[in-house]
Amino acid sequence: MRKNIIVFGGDGFCGWPTSLHISACGYNVTIVDNLVRRKTDIELECESLTPITPIGTRIEVWKKMTSKNIGYHYMNVAEDYEGLLALFKKLKPIAIVHFAEQRAAPYSMKSPSHKRYTVNNNINATSNILCSIVESGVDCHVVHLGTMGVYGYGTAGMKIPEGYLKVKVGGDSQKIKMLYPPNPGSIYHMTKCQDAIMFYYYNKNDDIRITDLHQGIVWGTNTPDTMLDERLVNRFDYDGDYGTVLNRFLMQAAVGHPLTVHGTGGQTRAFIHIQDTVKCVRLAIENPPRHGKRVRIFNQAAESYNIKDLAQKVNELVGAEIRYYKNPRKEDAENTLQFQNEGFKSLGWEPITLNTNLMKEVSDIALKYGERCDKRKIICTSLWNKDNELDYIGSKEEVI
Amino acid sequence: MRKNIIVFGGDGFCGWPTSLHISACGYNVTIVDNLVRRKTDIELECESLTPITPIGTRIEVWKKMTSKNIGYHYMNVAEDYEGLLALFKKLKPIAIVHFAEQRAAPYSMKSPSHKRYTVNNNINATSNILCSIVESGVDCHVVHLGTMGVYGYGTAGMKIPEGYLKVKVGGDSQKIKMLYPPNPGSIYHMTKCQDAIMFYYYNKNDDIRITDLHQGIVWGTNTPDTMLDERLVNRFDYDGDYGTVLNRFLMQAAVGHPLTVHGTGGQTRAFIHIQDTVKCVRLAIENPPRHGKRVRIFNQAAESYNIKDLAQKVNELVGAEIRYYKNPRKEDAENTLQFQNEGFKSLGWEPITLNTNLMKEVSDIALKYGERCDKRKIICTSLWNKDNELDYIGSKEEVI
Repeated sequence: MRKNIIVFGGDGFCGWPTSLHISACGYNVTIVDNLVRRKTDIELECESLTPITPIGTRIEVWKKMTSKNIGYHYMNVAEDYEGLLALFKKLKPIAIVHFAEQRAAPYSMKSPSHKRYTVNNNINATSNILCSIVESGVDCHVVHLGTMGVYGYGTAGMKIPEGYLKVKVGGDSQKIKMLYPPNPGSIYHMTKCQDAIMFYYYNKNDDIRITDLHQGIVWGTNTPDTMLDERLVNRFDYDGDYGTVLNRFLMQAAVGHPLTVHGTGGQTRAFIHIQDTVKCVRLAIENPPRHGKRVRIFNQAAESYNIKDLAQKVNELVGAEIRYYKNPRKEDAENTLQFQNEGFKSLGWEPITLNTNLMKEVSDIALKYGERCDKRKIICTSLWNKDNELDYIGSKEEVI
Repeated sequence: MRKNIIVFGGDGFCGWPTSLHISACGYNVTIVDNLVRRKTDIELECESLTPITPIGTRIEVWKKMTSKNIGYHYMNVAEDYEGLLALFKKLKPIAIVHFAEQRAAPYSMKSPSHKRYTVNNNINATSNILCSIVESGVDCHVVHLGTMGVYGYGTAGMKIPEGYLKVKVGGDSQKIKMLYPPNPGSIYHMTKCQDAIMFYYYNKNDDIRITDLHQGIVWGTNTPDTMLDERLVNRFDYDGDYGTVLNRFLMQAAVGHPLTVHGTGGQTRAFIHIQDTVKCVRLAIENPPRHGKRVRIFNQAAESYNIKDLAQKVNELVGAEIRYYKNPRKEDAENTLQFQNEGFKSLGWEPITLNTNLMKEVSDIALKYGERCDKRKIICTSLWNKDNELDYIGSKEEVI
């Protein structure tokens, strides 16, 4: 039985613990990564709060701890099509996991070159992966990390379905199920909506089996696998570009920085713990869609929280000043967000919800490595457009 | 008053006559083109049936005939962002017309590298244009040449609206107007659906005014402007990749080749004459959407025809054998197609419908330049996937 799985972007925040989990579950994992996330640390002059080891060390330590091999190829999948094709032909994977995209909304809005890089990188990565699967002739399930953000956040009252929307057209006579209309909130989110169209087309024309995971905001740092040895530790981003909100709050509290709520804090977001990310990806791999079926979309998120409430929870847990900053994003000040996640639940997933123990664990990590924090990197400096820029002039930390 | 207009892709089949028409109407036209379509002639070993002159000659002759200047920049907009930005800052155009995309479905399906080129070129061209408009701060209306093909052709019974679809969600309580769900039929069409998401986002985030033209299949060759001098002649593609169906039929008849109907010929397509293409683009430019309004979408097509009926019409007009070839595309054997085109009609457009005089004109062009035809290039050799390939083995001209 073929057991090869390629994890594109397997050195990143979600990719690394996913690679370990899949390896631990008995699959032959090959990581493909150009280590761009580590290079972006250099660009942004801000490292992971946790001291991550080189990928070679990570893989060696994993081997030592578990006797399991993980393969690794340094490759830019958005550029090296021939290398990618050769890899598919050689490994004939049963599935691939596609994390190989620039994944931060603020980074994607930083400047014209960041916008253009995000589009070019993400679209060509997905295009190359799909194209090489068809050319190689390998029957391979594509599991893609997407985002809940493709839905937009303005869906008043409606529970967001899993990727498809049932509608009535033309005087109730026609009922159709269509891709949920995309409503991206940044260039990054836009590329995920563009990905969806590529998935739709390659599935239709070439019968590629695809699962697109519309993931919520990830929180937490480690998984049982990354905790086996300190050299396996997962990355922890706290900066204004790559840090995700709950981890940032917990870390801000740990280093004595006010919690940075953008705007009113009335924005509602979907969340998932990193330990559930890896579990869901594995569940998707082990339950592939059948040939002839359309792209399968799962909402990979456990629950929704309002940012203000989240800040309040952190305040209650560890004590922290909450400060309101002008919102750098162009978005509604407040929104509700309800969504379905029956797909994974039907495969046996029991979501981890926000709990004190796991929040405490993030807080402990933040305390442990707090001295590595550069406080100047905490504030988000990426602005969605010039309207936001005007607000910022002269007072980047101005309280509303 | 600013009167500068940039035509990206202004040397192509639609771009050239559009540039002349806009110039004739009193605007200062600048063509930006990397002449890739001429280079593709070299790749495909097949030239335009009409002998087109170098772009420098074209522009000189136009100046001589009309005393009007057309500017020209040799530039790859998918790659040269800095050049593009400098041009926006210098010219401060009131509008740009975006034809700078690979526009043939069969070419986009020719091979993995053609698929990848089409995605990379088309997405980065659109991304760069939108990004440079925002960075330059120029208030500029974007008129984009899209395709009716984004809708797909399987919409039973429903008249396709202009870009947006009114639906009822959740037990009739919510009525929403959403982007018509994309259903591309090739990699080329897929990129136009991806473009639509970029337009949506840049319009929402940066208030860029955009008109997306969902154009039908263009037929005809010349416009009054290109007929002023033989050196202004428009290109005429007859090959299996770039030739459009009605022009191909008329040309096939002229050179004594059987009319190449793919599959049953039951496919229905939307059509527009090249003289209407240029008129519609000018109407769009002269009637820009207001700031704060969403992307405007017009169906730029005059009428629908069934391919079989079209072949029959050509047969009646000039006499020609009709042959049925295996369909290289993956598509429904038969479809109906009805669409709205009230947008342009409300701006005063009176569509040219299929008529004997204009068909005769194409036929005359084909007869005049018939000796330039390489008959080996007539059959479509691009295949949508391996299923189609199997059908072709041993008999590329096999009648069903």
